[in-house]
Amino acid sequence: MRCPSVTPHEGGALALLDAVLSAEGYTVHRPVFSAPGMPDVENLYARLGTEGPVLVIAGHTDVVPVGDEAAWTRDPFAGSVENGILHGRGACDMKGGLAAMMAASLRFRRENPDSSGSIAFLITGDEEGPAVNGTVKLLDWAHQRGERFDHCLLGEPTNPASMSDMIKIGRRGSLTGKLTVNGKQGHVGYPDLADNPIRGMVRLLAALEATPLDQGTRHFDPSNLEVTTLDVGNPASNVVPAQARAVFNIRFNDVWTPETLAAEIERRLRDAAGNSIRYELVVQPTNAVAFMTEPGPFVNLVADAVEAETGKRPALSTTGGTSDARFIKNYCPVVEYGVVGQTMHQVDECVAVADLVTLERITRRLLGTYFAAQHKA
Amino acid sequence: MRCPSVTPHEGGALALLDAVLSAEGYTVHRPVFSAPGMPDVENLYARLGTEGPVLVIAGHTDVVPVGDEAAWTRDPFAGSVENGILHGRGACDMKGGLAAMMAASLRFRRENPDSSGSIAFLITGDEEGPAVNGTVKLLDWAHQRGERFDHCLLGEPTNPASMSDMIKIGRRGSLTGKLTVNGKQGHVGYPDLADNPIRGMVRLLAALEATPLDQGTRHFDPSNLEVTTLDVGNPASNVVPAQARAVFNIRFNDVWTPETLAAEIERRLRDAAGNSIRYELVVQPTNAVAFMTEPGPFVNLVADAVEAETGKRPALSTTGGTSDARFIKNYCPVVEYGVVGQTMHQVDECVAVADLVTLERITRRLLGTYFAAQHKA
Repeated sequence: MRCPSVTPHEGGALALLDAVLSAEGYTVHRPVFSAPGMPDVENLYARLGTEGPVLVIAGHTDVVPVGDEAAWTRDPFAGSVENGILHGRGACDMKGGLAAMMAASLRFRRENPDSSGSIAFLITGDEEGPAVNGTVKLLDWAHQRGERFDHCLLGEPTNPASMSDMIKIGRRGSLTGKLTVNGKQGHVGYPDLADNPIRGMVRLLAALEATPLDQGTRHFDPSNLEVTTLDVGNPASNVVPAQARAVFNIRFNDVWTPETLAAEIERRLRDAAGNSIRYELVVQPTNAVAFMTEPGPFVNLVADAVEAETGKRPALSTTGGTSDARFIKNYCPVVEYGVVGQTMHQVDECVAVADLVTLERITRRLLGTYFAAQHKA
Repeated sequence: MRCPSVTPHEGGALALLDAVLSAEGYTVHRPVFSAPGMPDVENLYARLGTEGPVLVIAGHTDVVPVGDEAAWTRDPFAGSVENGILHGRGACDMKGGLAAMMAASLRFRRENPDSSGSIAFLITGDEEGPAVNGTVKLLDWAHQRGERFDHCLLGEPTNPASMSDMIKIGRRGSLTGKLTVNGKQGHVGYPDLADNPIRGMVRLLAALEATPLDQGTRHFDPSNLEVTTLDVGNPASNVVPAQARAVFNIRFNDVWTPETLAAEIERRLRDAAGNSIRYELVVQPTNAVAFMTEPGPFVNLVADAVEAETGKRPALSTTGGTSDARFIKNYCPVVEYGVVGQTMHQVDECVAVADLVTLERITRRLLGTYFAAQHKA
């Protein structure tokens, strides 16, 4: 918590993990990835053990900026604990959870020095940034080195309110589109000489929102479109503007691929526009496709561990935003579980120490059942 | 044309009129009007004759700013004439027309020194500005002094393409409303925790535009609503914004008063909003009500004069924006006629000298028939 690792800065956080893991016998790598026009980003890959199965614990040490620092009631990088609450940027997203999981893995191996299999840590410093020089490249880097993963536990904060609420077995995809409607500027007193693009924009957006994209699937909510901004910027109330611009974002389920969804959006716009509305749609490239780890033995092990430590079985959810799980799922089944995320990205981010203790216990229990199950299999 | 009378500056224009009219025997007044927070504005009232009927020629010497001066191909205040075209700011709106009408009135009285009745000039320097220290106060000032007007000819450019096109016998009213929809900010991945105001705004605007306000009346086009701007200003495509703001302007006919129209807008919004859309509507106060000078003897005299000089009878129209006629109609019947308005407010504003000559002839003919008709009556 005391490492100011505001994305993309390492801030000493990965160096600390390196020292701790190396001291416990992990082989630690610190690859730095680059891309034109973007800052270099440090990452960390560590593994203890040489044989399979390999359970990867994934996460990130970078955090979002402090925001309005004057609004914080505590130093965001002091890591102070008061009345059982750990305060600071990254407390819940996700240094707190990462520390608890790391503590669990160290303690597990001390208590079970002869455990079969390997534990690996896949930690990036580019989850809150552009996500270009982080998990995507780190996975590829590891794969090129011959690393193979059996399962992954990603430690993002998944719980809405309490530690027994929710594990995430998938995520919806995300597609962003920019819609521009072009009209013809003119005086409001002469509407026949003008063509108001706002009229067309309202019709197009109404058409996009008129019918649900789908009804949801067994593990996914219905896909959802939100228009995130709509701007004209015309200061003169006696002038018909020339152009209106909107941006929308769709969180979509496994009914769609980005390609089929973009085609559906284009179809709806084309039908609504007819020959009378001149528009342009630019769909941004996306690597956030909808995905899911099918409920089964691994998902059950995670849910069992949560239930055993909290007394309540967590929901299997695919809600929320995107995460690096969308990259990891290309290499192995991935499940997300972490602390309560209520204060993530906010001023006065914090986490209950008791929740960190619970997460440590759950992770340690999972490691025990996971490697025992693999041993039996 | 060479007086740089950019609103609210007199620029020497009214002083010039004063000198010309005084030299021809007019009694000239130059009242200056003030209001808190606004520049003082000079105006001019002149009258020749003491008996009725009083025909008022109204207009303004102030002009809109030059705009992009580098884009002008001529000095906007040189008043140059090339190939029969007078160039400069105000050439068509409306110094050119005002000069032609003044020339007509001077020549008419020289040719008819014993004409009955009075000719008056009601000239403001605040037509292109806020219209607070101009025609409204000048009319009141004149009325307080006992001046009574029988008819008014307002010299705004009324013709779309040629001098025989159009006289304006009325104007639509103008009503501006500001609509704000309040939602709840949130992450697009958690739509249940947010309330997107753009969705509500699209529904409200669609409801405002769904049904025509009316079908028009005998002399008026249907009332027309234009949304002039719609703004959210949210830069983050993963955030549902908190608020959406729109401005609309309605040009309305004599079916409505500002009060009945505002009530209809409120009714449409209330019905569309139900209990689910939180909105605020602020209707701006307006002094632009719909009005019309009923076709009859005076309108016919103007149309007759246009037809006699151009060979074609002009249309009687109520189209276009607002003008100071909306103030004058409270004192006497008013008809608008002037030059071709195609370049008004634009870069390279200009007017054909031939059109100014035609306008001078039409005005002189009108003065003759007007005072002869009144004499006979």
